[in-house]
Amino acid sequence: MSPHPRVGRDHILDKAEELFTEHGYKSASIREIARECGVTNAAIYYHFPNKESLFAEVMQRHAETLQEKMTRAGENIESPRERVIAILQAYIDVIAGQHAPLFMLRRNAKHLKGHGKHRGEFMRAFSKPLVNALKYAEEMKEIKKKPNAEESAAMMFGMLHGLAQQHRAEGIEGRPLSNEDIRMAVNLFWEGINK
Amino acid sequence: MSPHPRVGRDHILDKAEELFTEHGYKSASIREIARECGVTNAAIYYHFPNKESLFAEVMQRHAETLQEKMTRAGENIESPRERVIAILQAYIDVIAGQHAPLFMLRRNAKHLKGHGKHRGEFMRAFSKPLVNALKYAEEMKEIKKKPNAEESAAMMFGMLHGLAQQHRAEGIEGRPLSNEDIRMAVNLFWEGINK
Repeated sequence: MSPHPRVGRDHILDKAEELFTEHGYKSASIREIARECGVTNAAIYYHFPNKESLFAEVMQRHAETLQEKMTRAGENIESPRERVIAILQAYIDVIAGQHAPLFMLRRNAKHLKGHGKHRGEFMRAFSKPLVNALKYAEEMKEIKKKPNAEESAAMMFGMLHGLAQQHRAEGIEGRPLSNEDIRMAVNLFWEGINK
Repeated sequence: MSPHPRVGRDHILDKAEELFTEHGYKSASIREIARECGVTNAAIYYHFPNKESLFAEVMQRHAETLQEKMTRAGENIESPRERVIAILQAYIDVIAGQHAPLFMLRRNAKHLKGHGKHRGEFMRAFSKPLVNALKYAEEMKEIKKKPNAEESAAMMFGMLHGLAQQHRAEGIEGRPLSNEDIRMAVNLFWEGINK
């Protein structure tokens, strides 16, 4: 039997996420996470060899949730462009609702260095639903094959981030991106600004 | 006569930039900056009321240098699209050459909160040359007026950042963005992916 049967991985991950988000990766310590869970440091180390691996798993879990929501949003939408819009809307909904966690996590992604491919994997995980929708658009002959779907997805996310940042910098009230904003960016990407 | 005539603002700003870049905004202290300059803390406070205002000025200086280089790059280029490409190339050249400083500075931009409009001003400063080039493209009837030039500029920067991030995540060697990458992104923005 496990020496710490009552402290599940999920509970530790929940608390770790809270503390990483609140205090940042560096400031949050295993000691603090253990205290929040009401257990000893050893109970944490039983599940995770070190803080880095705990952080990696928190990020992985985030990416999976995001990926699921995006995939579901695009299901059963036949129009490739509408599918892309729905997927990006789901993305924006998640990051607007969990603004702090996701950005903190991405900002601290450098701490995953020791975990080899993790950073790239994390990015691939959350961009996958969009990449797949763009491949579908290629198959439907709605868009060109160059740039490839991975590059196109990265540029689309970038457009939305840039636009949200600009809206925040201009002090535009409310949610940084509306559905019309997302639609405008996708239409621009599809048709170009000179049309 | 100034009590610290030999320690100029520029020298302090240089050292502050080095230390902010190396250790991050939080870890770099006025004491450390003073020590690097070979002066007392009071000599720093003579020029800057606090660390926040010193940081704000380091960022301001960065934005101005970047703005100058971008403006110069676009001068005398008649084709609006080529002007945009040249300006973005200058932007990429600066951030590739000073990768750490600029990103550290932007990451820490939240510390400018107390400085009211500074964050927005900083963004406006470095996007201004691109905004002007896009307004020129509007006047030449090469692009539509909607989205406006400020939003278009933010989305263009976003596309490049997204693409660079994707290239890094994929472990693509060398500079994250080549001139062909910039050209591809601008052409896409201009004409859309379905052309």
